[in-house]
Amino acid sequence: MKKKDVVIIGGGVIGTSIAYELTKRGKSVALVEKDTIGAHASSAAGGMLGAQVEFAEPGPLFDLSLRSRLMFPDLQKELYAASGIDIQLKTPGMLRVAFTEEEKSTLMKQAEWQTAMGLPATWLDTKEVRRMEPAVTDGIVGALFLTEDTQVSAPDLTKAFAVAAAKHGAAITENCEAIEFYRQGEQMTGIETTAGKLEADEYVIAGGAWSGKIMKQLGHSLPIFPVKGEAFSVLSIPHPIEKTIYSHGCYIVPKSGDRLLVGASVKDCGFDARLTIDGLQQLMAKAVRLLPVIKDCPLEKTWASLRPQTADGLPYFGRLSAYNNVSIAAGHFRNGILLSPITGQLIAQLLSGEATAEALEPFTDIRHSIPVSQ
Amino acid sequence: MKKKDVVIIGGGVIGTSIAYELTKRGKSVALVEKDTIGAHASSAAGGMLGAQVEFAEPGPLFDLSLRSRLMFPDLQKELYAASGIDIQLKTPGMLRVAFTEEEKSTLMKQAEWQTAMGLPATWLDTKEVRRMEPAVTDGIVGALFLTEDTQVSAPDLTKAFAVAAAKHGAAITENCEAIEFYRQGEQMTGIETTAGKLEADEYVIAGGAWSGKIMKQLGHSLPIFPVKGEAFSVLSIPHPIEKTIYSHGCYIVPKSGDRLLVGASVKDCGFDARLTIDGLQQLMAKAVRLLPVIKDCPLEKTWASLRPQTADGLPYFGRLSAYNNVSIAAGHFRNGILLSPITGQLIAQLLSGEATAEALEPFTDIRHSIPVSQ
Amino acid sequence: MKKKDVVIIGGGVIGTSIAYELTKRGKSVALVEKDTIGAHASSAAGGMLGAQVEFAEPGPLFDLSLRSRLMFPDLQKELYAASGIDIQLKTPGMLRVAFTEEEKSTLMKQAEWQTAMGLPATWLDTKEVRRMEPAVTDGIVGALFLTEDTQVSAPDLTKAFAVAAAKHGAAITENCEAIEFYRQGEQMTGIETTAGKLEADEYVIAGGAWSGKIMKQLGHSLPIFPVKGEAFSVLSIPHPIEKTIYSHGCYIVPKSGDRLLVGASVKDCGFDARLTIDGLQQLMAKAVRLLPVIKDCPLEKTWASLRPQTADGLPYFGRLSAYNNVSIAAGHFRNGILLSPITGQLIAQLLSGEATAEALEPFTDIRHSIPVSQ
Amino acid sequence: MKKKDVVIIGGGVIGTSIAYELTKRGKSVALVEKDTIGAHASSAAGGMLGAQVEFAEPGPLFDLSLRSRLMFPDLQKELYAASGIDIQLKTPGMLRVAFTEEEKSTLMKQAEWQTAMGLPATWLDTKEVRRMEPAVTDGIVGALFLTEDTQVSAPDLTKAFAVAAAKHGAAITENCEAIEFYRQGEQMTGIETTAGKLEADEYVIAGGAWSGKIMKQLGHSLPIFPVKGEAFSVLSIPHPIEKTIYSHGCYIVPKSGDRLLVGASVKDCGFDARLTIDGLQQLMAKAVRLLPVIKDCPLEKTWASLRPQTADGLPYFGRLSAYNNVSIAAGHFRNGILLSPITGQLIAQLLSGEATAEALEPFTDIRHSIPVSQ
Repeated sequence: MKKKDVVIIGGGVIGTSIAYELTKRGKSVALVEKDTIGAHASSAAGGMLGAQVEFAEPGPLFDLSLRSRLMFPDLQKELYAASGIDIQLKTPGMLRVAFTEEEKSTLMKQAEWQTAMGLPATWLDTKEVRRMEPAVTDGIVGALFLTEDTQVSAPDLTKAFAVAAAKHGAAITENCEAIEFYRQGEQMTGIETTAGKLEADEYVIAGGAWSGKIMKQLGHSLPIFPVKGEAFSVLSIPHPIEKTIYSHGCYIVPKSGDRLLVGASVKDCGFDARLTIDGLQQLMAKAVRLLPVIKDCPLEKTWASLRPQTADGLPYFGRLSAYNNVSIAAGHFRNGILLSPITGQLIAQLLSGEATAEALEPFTDIRHSIPVSQ
Repeated sequence: MKKKDVVIIGGGVIGTSIAYELTKRGKSVALVEKDTIGAHASSAAGGMLGAQVEFAEPGPLFDLSLRSRLMFPDLQKELYAASGIDIQLKTPGMLRVAFTEEEKSTLMKQAEWQTAMGLPATWLDTKEVRRMEPAVTDGIVGALFLTEDTQVSAPDLTKAFAVAAAKHGAAITENCEAIEFYRQGEQMTGIETTAGKLEADEYVIAGGAWSGKIMKQLGHSLPIFPVKGEAFSVLSIPHPIEKTIYSHGCYIVPKSGDRLLVGASVKDCGFDARLTIDGLQQLMAKAVRLLPVIKDCPLEKTWASLRPQTADGLPYFGRLSAYNNVSIAAGHFRNGILLSPITGQLIAQLLSGEATAEALEPFTDIRHSIPVSQ
Repeated sequence: MKKKDVVIIGGGVIGTSIAYELTKRGKSVALVEKDTIGAHASSAAGGMLGAQVEFAEPGPLFDLSLRSRLMFPDLQKELYAASGIDIQLKTPGMLRVAFTEEEKSTLMKQAEWQTAMGLPATWLDTKEVRRMEPAVTDGIVGALFLTEDTQVSAPDLTKAFAVAAAKHGAAITENCEAIEFYRQGEQMTGIETTAGKLEADEYVIAGGAWSGKIMKQLGHSLPIFPVKGEAFSVLSIPHPIEKTIYSHGCYIVPKSGDRLLVGASVKDCGFDARLTIDGLQQLMAKAVRLLPVIKDCPLEKTWASLRPQTADGLPYFGRLSAYNNVSIAAGHFRNGILLSPITGQLIAQLLSGEATAEALEPFTDIRHSIPVSQ
Repeated sequence: MKKKDVVIIGGGVIGTSIAYELTKRGKSVALVEKDTIGAHASSAAGGMLGAQVEFAEPGPLFDLSLRSRLMFPDLQKELYAASGIDIQLKTPGMLRVAFTEEEKSTLMKQAEWQTAMGLPATWLDTKEVRRMEPAVTDGIVGALFLTEDTQVSAPDLTKAFAVAAAKHGAAITENCEAIEFYRQGEQMTGIETTAGKLEADEYVIAGGAWSGKIMKQLGHSLPIFPVKGEAFSVLSIPHPIEKTIYSHGCYIVPKSGDRLLVGASVKDCGFDARLTIDGLQQLMAKAVRLLPVIKDCPLEKTWASLRPQTADGLPYFGRLSAYNNVSIAAGHFRNGILLSPITGQLIAQLLSGEATAEALEPFTDIRHSIPVSQ
């Protein structure tokens, strides 16, 4: 393969979004994925665009989340035109339920600062919640109603990025793993993969939970580690709910057709991505507590995947401090779907010279990276 | 369950379309399905809306096909609003390929009478075909280009009808089989199902390939029999084609994302719905002949299903001759997806008194029904 | 197909055992199965040969169970020789656990009358149980140890019967449903199936949970109804237990290789054979209570099936009272695997004139059969 | 985890056999597998023990093959006792079919030198073949009948090794990948894995097709590369054949129950282990040519896997030349199942000091290993 502008390592929602944004800018791109496109966390996700629900406090990641959420309506049209895939953006909003007065008070505070920023966030008491969604349990003390926290189909989003990038000329190779990295000083000069050698001007690491392993191959220790998420889905025609219902440790997302998706556990279990009895049991208990009618629904399927967590909960974006042509975009934990549009845009801007690296400062690897002596 | 306006037997694309149209008209409906919604031919179909490609001659079924095809754009919006499901109507048209001069001459005749009716049907020579779709083999003599023969996702269409009907109040019971029929003279008075007794003013049989069996339970012999269709899909990012490519005995339909769907054999094998080596082998040979790049594509999955054929190739619509409150809508063979909107509308109009039975005359069971002496 | 000695309706463990025993006696046999061999309860079963554990009191079914259990060691060799399939008879015995003093006292009584009959049944206190199986919870008050209650692989047993019968000449047709029955007075003269007409001297109904429906087609009401059983399996290398552990409502069976099979719920849900959240949740809770290490095991799969229950809990064996050439063998509920050898033998003896019908008297349909006026 | 005697990298049939043999000798063993036990070639294999059929000439690998084949009868009993798993050793022999006189003459030569060594190898003409296996095509010129070339269930063999090793105390960790290797001079001092650090006195690389990648991590280039094998299975009750039928590029193995396994293509495609249309098509054509009845059989499933090939076709066994405590056992290509017992034994003898390294001389890495400058 002849030399590319950019080689991307990783074909999840982050790598494919970057590939899409780069090809939109006319860059030649090769993307390698060790399994298949979206094989891991990107297809396992619930697809919630929970920019407001996920943040108890303002901060730089919250700002990016808001910007990214705003990109979805246009992105849906763009990707549909380019790929023929509907990412299934649904906009009925989300109910963040409280079971205790303590939870309520935390949510009220969250509503306060978000409302102050001009964002819609309304507290509803139990009666109001149940008027809106009669199937929700009456054992709650109320819910925060977030009309702008919407959802998409996570597998469709990832495929749409990949198909659109491929239509724009990206060379996507599945089942292709990076074995060895060639460097000269601060310059990466090529990658040996299981499908041959690749060369480019710029390299991007978007390896999700496996990014820490790739960094180690590059001689650096960066604290990105896998956190297992277990989930299941049930069938129900018609759906008992219209909005995503979210409580501590459990969300129930009504998906197209006859599926309700229920996620997700949070477990530090290494790279073993198998669903355990314990995880399923706890998640079922939470789901039934929240939406009692789920008890009688037939199980559709169960799954688990590994999400990339970092030491301080913030993702890594931007050029690696030890290289002048290698960037990283990893560590999005539970917000990979939500943050994928803005991540693709920021990295593409950086590599196209449209933006300086300053915007990414809070997120660079410099805060944690440690060279590993070999 | 209290008495309904209409009970429908069969939860394929025909039964669910009828349920949807009836609930839109305010009727109370119960639908029983022996397996699950769309479990058989309705989900196995390629989803082509081949109103023009499927007909070598004009006739009453051709007229219905055209009317039905015209209904899809509005239906897409309606069903999306009512069910949240996108039926994935794609409109790039279809290429009906000829490998021999003889096939070409047949297709030219087809183009002639269809053009005379004001329908778009253009002959393209090999070069033109390959300019449009470069991946198609050069071993053809040309193709008929039918811009109005589009496609939908067959499983999504069936689910969308069911979910929309359920939201309008239809009581859908899966895994529920009709065991016994109660009658008084020409009046059906109730049905014993595996989930209890059902009563209604009107009854509709929409049992697909199993409709002949149901007719036998009613004491009538009607020649509806199963014809097996075998199919497979492959993965390809991006797609090598944009339009459906159709040759004798093989169509290749580009589906959302990374799938190409290839169908379908036509086999008279009774109720054994398993894909055989022979069927798959022949279909693969045809697909590779048509689109050589398919050779290198990974197989996604294989499947088979039973389509309802009739003695004269025409479906049965309308009130059964031996009853005054039982109707049938079955025997659509390979055109069930295409004909589902118009079938739902016609049956709903009949049962709502909006239309007289005359429109359905060419399709009633009277042409074949034989009482069975018990 | 030319006239057979016997036509069997149903290809579960009962129908195939009968076919095997008849072909061993030189009879020509046709067996029709509406789905595939062992598709339903026969493959979903845990495979326990719980002749002692399942009976709180002696009685005629207990006697048959003991006789049937004794047949397995020879059957294993016979079927292996005839079919090449190992039915995986495992003989480490079973522990029937008590969580309360009340349960203990019931089990002690069971041990008493069984011991009096010369059967091994020993009470072990908690320490002794945990010395034998250290992974069992210490929250029990003890367990009944039944060394002769062994296990087989239920799917392999059913396949072995079918393959052995087929090798002896039985014509097995899968995906073939009986539509209509022809009779002259008390004589059945033929069956119309979805794969054509079948004629025989004798007919046997072995339709499992669907036998009541078949009886209705014959004009009789017989109370055989489906009872859903839900189950799951987990993976564990090596197994934490060697013996089957059985408590109220939950058994854990160590299977070949890396599987532990956990069953089963008991639910009266009609013919809907889908596993529900509620069923899985309760079963998981029971399994974890019994064997805490299961919590950390990865889930392998989940399933559910319909077992045939009868009004008085006894199966139906023998000639139907209303016919002189139709027999039934159905309604084995949770003991189909255990009772399959003896059922096959008894029916084959009856139809071969080796035995009179007297032996089957407690089990004939005469106790419940009601003609249905049509 | 505390320091072990041996750490094994790779949980296929080779790694688990080594683990089994080491634990039998009282060694403490840790085995890490990047996916799950037997996930790749070891479970995809046909399970033929083709010691004679696979070799056109005598040589050291042929000798090992014969020795390994002889070990299976005892191994079956041993593993059944230790693991409860029947490896399904079947001994009806194999027919190596010739379609041309040329093939016949090659096979006759093979028969000659094998017979001269006292091995059974009889030529049968077409009539004799068809008397033995009437379903085989009459389009052949005859077949070599090899009574001692038997078969096992490859997935069951791998699981049995693993379960038996685990019962003897081996610590098996699935989903665990080696990231980094620590060395001091010619001594390996530890391995960093995705599940933590491991230390041992000796290390064994048994990584199948991935062994070349592991070698590269150790700083050496060794020509082990993946060769894809595609396969499928069909259902048939009863089986049309009793013996394995083998022709150029296609074998059909009758498996327990209702399966016929058909393998396998040989493709140099890198690490993409997906079955392609081309591969399946060619394999089906060969199978139907050999055994025409396969045409009408239902397809059960399709799969593909990566087998480890080496530059000269011989596997690598023994201590790595660059280390004094690291061994390799990899590169068995299509003979991994057959050679697994002897490989396990030889490596265990080497690491236990029971044997000197001389026996393994023809197979050491020294013939190809090249240090990679980093």
